[in-house]
Amino acid sequence: MASQFTISGTVYLAGAGPGAASLLTLRAAEVLREADLVLHDDLVSEAVLQIVPAHTAVFNVGKRCGTKKVTQEEINQRMVSAARNGLTVVRLKSGDPLVFGRTQEEILALREAGVPFEIVPGITAATAAAAAAQIPLTERSSASKLVFVSNHPGTEKVKRNWHESVARDATLVFYMPGGSFAELRNELTERGVSENLPCLLVSNVSREDQRMIRTVVRELEGAPVLAAPSLLIVGEAVAGATGCEEYRAKDDAPLNVEEILLLDTESARITAD
Amino acid sequence: MASQFTISGTVYLAGAGPGAASLLTLRAAEVLREADLVLHDDLVSEAVLQIVPAHTAVFNVGKRCGTKKVTQEEINQRMVSAARNGLTVVRLKSGDPLVFGRTQEEILALREAGVPFEIVPGITAATAAAAAAQIPLTERSSASKLVFVSNHPGTEKVKRNWHESVARDATLVFYMPGGSFAELRNELTERGVSENLPCLLVSNVSREDQRMIRTVVRELEGAPVLAAPSLLIVGEAVAGATGCEEYRAKDDAPLNVEEILLLDTESARITAD
Repeated sequence: MASQFTISGTVYLAGAGPGAASLLTLRAAEVLREADLVLHDDLVSEAVLQIVPAHTAVFNVGKRCGTKKVTQEEINQRMVSAARNGLTVVRLKSGDPLVFGRTQEEILALREAGVPFEIVPGITAATAAAAAAQIPLTERSSASKLVFVSNHPGTEKVKRNWHESVARDATLVFYMPGGSFAELRNELTERGVSENLPCLLVSNVSREDQRMIRTVVRELEGAPVLAAPSLLIVGEAVAGATGCEEYRAKDDAPLNVEEILLLDTESARITAD
Repeated sequence: MASQFTISGTVYLAGAGPGAASLLTLRAAEVLREADLVLHDDLVSEAVLQIVPAHTAVFNVGKRCGTKKVTQEEINQRMVSAARNGLTVVRLKSGDPLVFGRTQEEILALREAGVPFEIVPGITAATAAAAAAQIPLTERSSASKLVFVSNHPGTEKVKRNWHESVARDATLVFYMPGGSFAELRNELTERGVSENLPCLLVSNVSREDQRMIRTVVRELEGAPVLAAPSLLIVGEAVAGATGCEEYRAKDDAPLNVEEILLLDTESARITAD
């Protein structure tokens, strides 16, 4: 344990935003430039890491980083140990650290160790995707509620969970939607959602390889699997999306999303009770 | 209408974030420094406006700006007209422009006028408040869903709406929660929410006059009215909030939020079905 005479460094639990360096906050850019040590997740972009000075130690501690898997416990220990050695540590996470960022364990570890820390918010993928597609996530007449759901495939709990959110007057954002939407399509339509409700698949938002595909619930089953990080936005608000490709199964009916007005169109709304 | 020879300026629909200039994105700061004209909402902070160069024209077009009320139509016209005169216009909104930002009408007006525009995301108040209080908005064991609700008092539709979101395993964020929580408390408890579920009232997050008050559902009725912009976060995640005052009615039972563990505490969960 650190003695009472130790001068501790500080840990910043910082959001890297969706990928474009220009979508970092001024505060996040500042702490990255002052960091002695950066521990980042796998999904943090190269563009963001490029603003870290060359003399700073940078480590990918992401869950997917190949042969050398770093456990949460090891990440906690490295943060605490470096801070106790007086270093400025940035623990950098894609998006916002408090939205599907698994930050709670790190907060508790830092508190327990008595290491001072600051949380720096980041632009979460949903708002960056909405900005890219030029669609509102809330809209007075059609979406007074915004729901973020984690949709890691295979978690029964999450499935039960989002069902409760299928309601009129909402935009649903599925983070980490996985690669197969057949089941999701069935569950949405079983809940009474219109088959013509528009959906937007977004991959690598704000990055050079950003891809946005607009489709409708009916077509979700055959929609292409996009690279992570990705999300799926479902709701009337998607109807006005721009700059995106469109997907429909071959020889199937046209998408007709143009016919779904963003205002006052009962047919486009989610109709579950 | 603009002739085909007009060189149009650009409009940026930009998020100002919650108030601290350091929580602007690099992109928002950049466009503010390049702006010829800034049209901002009432809730945009002085700290943010200070980064706008002195030669830039800055107008408060907020709904509350006293004697001279500016209509949405007038805002649209000013943006379009200035852009057609070759100016760089920033339409600056508190938080993120696509989350309760009433941006849809402006998007449609700009599209209709053929004026090029870009949407610049901003840190929305919920994530800034969570960062300030050091609480996760999602947590694997207790909140796999995050719901943002607008709670403008008196709108029957919104009331009906958030009811559908009172579910286990969620964090509820009420934007613009209004000044009276008596009814909200009753509605939460009628839906089966535990009276001990923690709540966090947050006002002016990230600004010099930031105020955070933690209480529980039972005590919401008497909780103080905080200055706008404010929000109310309800959910188990709030239990670990730091740096906040606590509120309870005089002579009432102690808050006991310390007893609500963030993990594996059934009693702290919302129990509506």
